[in-house]
Amino acid sequence: MEIGKYIDHTNLKMDAKEEDIAKLCHEAIEYNFETVCVHPYYVTLAKDLLKDTNIGVCTVVGFPLGMNTPKVKAYEAIEATENGADEIDMVINVGVLKDKDYDYVKSEIEEIRDQIDGKTLKVIIETSLLTEEEIIKMTEICNETFVNFIKTNTGFGSRGVSLEDVELINKHKNEVLEIKASGGIKTFKQMNELIKAGATRIGTSNSVEIVTHMNCNCNEKCDCNEKCDHCHCEEEK
Amino acid sequence: MEIGKYIDHTNLKMDAKEEDIAKLCHEAIEYNFETVCVHPYYVTLAKDLLKDTNIGVCTVVGFPLGMNTPKVKAYEAIEATENGADEIDMVINVGVLKDKDYDYVKSEIEEIRDQIDGKTLKVIIETSLLTEEEIIKMTEICNETFVNFIKTNTGFGSRGVSLEDVELINKHKNEVLEIKASGGIKTFKQMNELIKAGATRIGTSNSVEIVTHMNCNCNEKCDCNEKCDHCHCEEEK
Repeated sequence: MEIGKYIDHTNLKMDAKEEDIAKLCHEAIEYNFETVCVHPYYVTLAKDLLKDTNIGVCTVVGFPLGMNTPKVKAYEAIEATENGADEIDMVINVGVLKDKDYDYVKSEIEEIRDQIDGKTLKVIIETSLLTEEEIIKMTEICNETFVNFIKTNTGFGSRGVSLEDVELINKHKNEVLEIKASGGIKTFKQMNELIKAGATRIGTSNSVEIVTHMNCNCNEKCDCNEKCDHCHCEEEK
Repeated sequence: MEIGKYIDHTNLKMDAKEEDIAKLCHEAIEYNFETVCVHPYYVTLAKDLLKDTNIGVCTVVGFPLGMNTPKVKAYEAIEATENGADEIDMVINVGVLKDKDYDYVKSEIEEIRDQIDGKTLKVIIETSLLTEEEIIKMTEICNETFVNFIKTNTGFGSRGVSLEDVELINKHKNEVLEIKASGGIKTFKQMNELIKAGATRIGTSNSVEIVTHMNCNCNEKCDCNEKCDHCHCEEEK
């Protein structure tokens, strides 16, 4: 698969302006990313900017804390779909998961799944707050609810995704559930490792850097032997 | 005024469990705090635990990023009010503010204000992302919309409130607008300085520490000469 099609090209900054979203969409067209991932407020704008392209619009629900009521989450998801969102990344209620009320966690997911008109649903579990046991439990719930993706992190937690997170989920997921790795993904090398571990989608704000630096590790120490026009780390060579 | 009545006793952690909210409410009763500030999901529980007390329930809307649609924010505010919230802390759309669409920012506030049945409304501006000019503009908008409070920070930004934030807002606010200082408030000394600068409400998760350490600065270097049962920094004396 073309590398760009793995990527949800993301801008979920609190102070994202219209021009930032326009830039994001133009980059998505230029590099043929799978989707742009934007705040609900920007779904209409992104959908308009990407009409007549094959690039989807992804947005977030109950983001990033997930401690809204189920009604509000469902309302937000439905409105986002009506505004043109193709993919919905919803955050679970981690507090309730910690209280082991799995029926609640499951029903909240199902309520959204059933009301978004068959759009792609990703369930964000925020691995940075979870035990291994809780990550496995959430993978099982995502298996059982037949959502499209389990998504690892919001990018607003104490850490981003780890290779261990993806390996653990991959071990417990069924054949149809896909993994979106997200949070702190900065290099092609890192992205490639996550894909090898089982991820089929990558959420990152560093997408352009990643696809223009496939032959080096510029965000770490550069070790490319090829000429790299975009390389920012000449001095480190 | 009794010191506890300045305080919104806050737990907005992503993984807050029922027992954490119960503890928060019991502390609020013990120390007579003005409100507890909890996620929308926990409004019903907090309201129930605090019935027959004079302690209010405060919750948050569009929290912490504020980049939801106006419809979702209004829906969340209305539902929170119906569930028993006495005070609503809503986050503005910072991206739109940066794009200088002040009419939008104002109308979003007014829409919520008009639908929450006269409950207390606080407008969170997240000073860490704003220029001085933008803080002044938001103070003017809060003056003009006759909300109850302008609130400085979410606690999820790059920094919490500064004394300069409160001084700047205080200089530009009208007589009826009140200031809630929040984000990173850890000591009585810090709280006291913010109150002297113009704040009449303090949002903090460190409330119990603060009111039990009024005569020392235990969160910084301890310099109290009195016996302090709660003091954690004996070794620093």
